[in-house]
Amino acid sequence: MATWPHVHAVQIYYEDTDHSGLVYHANYLRYFERAREHLLGVPELVRLLREDGVGFVVYRCEMVFREGAVFGDSLQIRSTPKLESEFRVTFKQDVFRGEKLLVQGTVEMVAVNREGSLVAIPATVLARI
Amino acid sequence: MATWPHVHAVQIYYEDTDHSGLVYHANYLRYFERAREHLLGVPELVRLLREDGVGFVVYRCEMVFREGAVFGDSLQIRSTPKLESEFRVTFKQDVFRGEKLLVQGTVEMVAVNREGSLVAIPATVLARI
Amino acid sequence: MATWPHVHAVQIYYEDTDHSGLVYHANYLRYFERAREHLLGVPELVRLLREDGVGFVVYRCEMVFREGAVFGDSLQIRSTPKLESEFRVTFKQDVFRGEKLLVQGTVEMVAVNREGSLVAIPATVLARI
Amino acid sequence: MATWPHVHAVQIYYEDTDHSGLVYHANYLRYFERAREHLLGVPELVRLLREDGVGFVVYRCEMVFREGAVFGDSLQIRSTPKLESEFRVTFKQDVFRGEKLLVQGTVEMVAVNREGSLVAIPATVLARI
Repeated sequence: MATWPHVHAVQIYYEDTDHSGLVYHANYLRYFERAREHLLGVPELVRLLREDGVGFVVYRCEMVFREGAVFGDSLQIRSTPKLESEFRVTFKQDVFRGEKLLVQGTVEMVAVNREGSLVAIPATVLARI
Repeated sequence: MATWPHVHAVQIYYEDTDHSGLVYHANYLRYFERAREHLLGVPELVRLLREDGVGFVVYRCEMVFREGAVFGDSLQIRSTPKLESEFRVTFKQDVFRGEKLLVQGTVEMVAVNREGSLVAIPATVLARI
Repeated sequence: MATWPHVHAVQIYYEDTDHSGLVYHANYLRYFERAREHLLGVPELVRLLREDGVGFVVYRCEMVFREGAVFGDSLQIRSTPKLESEFRVTFKQDVFRGEKLLVQGTVEMVAVNREGSLVAIPATVLARI
Repeated sequence: MATWPHVHAVQIYYEDTDHSGLVYHANYLRYFERAREHLLGVPELVRLLREDGVGFVVYRCEMVFREGAVFGDSLQIRSTPKLESEFRVTFKQDVFRGEKLLVQGTVEMVAVNREGSLVAIPATVLARI
């Protein structure tokens, strides 16, 4: 059984920052996605996509930026999933530098088939959350 | 006097998409930022940063994804600013393909000085919204 | 008949820069790609991909960085294609700010089918170069 | 004493791919940069930038793409630095999936001060290569 939050480490490189000196705000959505993929299991996500034609799509997201991260920072993405319905999972995803909370995020995810139609969250994914 | 919404065109290239075939969700925050810069006036944003040391930071954002955009799409970002206080502007920013609404966004922006402290939204920017 | 070089305008936003204050070096490859798509014609590229299953792939690229671009810059990508063989087009792609040359690039492009196998450059594309 | 090549692992996420299903070509320059930062030592790069005002800039790069990487791939960036002169380091940086070579890269790097003028590669960096 998993313990929450799931923790994913992110290192901040030149590519992550903008000319303000801080991490470009949109990039946190990338870190959240990386964290969700590890949380759900990359090999199973690959299998679902190739064999079952099931992919995942963000339906809604929200972020509050409390403090910026800078080049060289080692961040933690702490993610906690919550099954909202058969079709929808919400992830609370927060960004920490040490014990300092930098960004608070919420991401709602749904599953779709090859035609882009909504399908139930697969059982193998449910087993991880 | 400006008429709202401000409209900014975005062309979708290979770089904008991911292997699902759709535009990567985080990229819409980039299109929103491009639209805000044109709305506020790029030369004045450059001047504010270089001469007055004033930059802009996203404090909060939210997006709802209704339908995906694909390679070759010509999108419109329709932006409407609202001054919430002396320190905060909220932009309603929606993505359209023709008359079809694809993504609904809200972005709250604040101004900061070189030390990262909150400052009032500059008058030259207020004049544009 | 086309006149060379083909010119494509690029505006530099926050997203394009990194904490050095300059445009992140890898981004020039994105600007080159945008320019090539306009040069070759986006609607035909979309049609080739959807109907004929033909896409384009960079086989080799090279860049020399002479001077950095900054936030607010309006750049020009000047592109000149050269058909090297039935299968390969080389683009000379240079980045200018006014008459100042910032980056010199060379990109070799090939066409592939749905299985990823090399195919001849389509006639509709040849007609553009 | 270091043994070459330096190996840096890269996991391929949704964000890395484009609608062709493969990793977007420009992204390999990002992976190369991440690898160089670990090779040179992130804390020392941060210190050089903040205390000495010395940063690193790519002067020239070249890539040959032999095969594409896909979502879910675990790649290795194998980097070997070579000091070309007091002012210039060249990195041979290749991308492998298992023992399969996907991309061959060469990156020339120079050091600059706060004014953007060329300076000698710092001794602490020389000690790592």
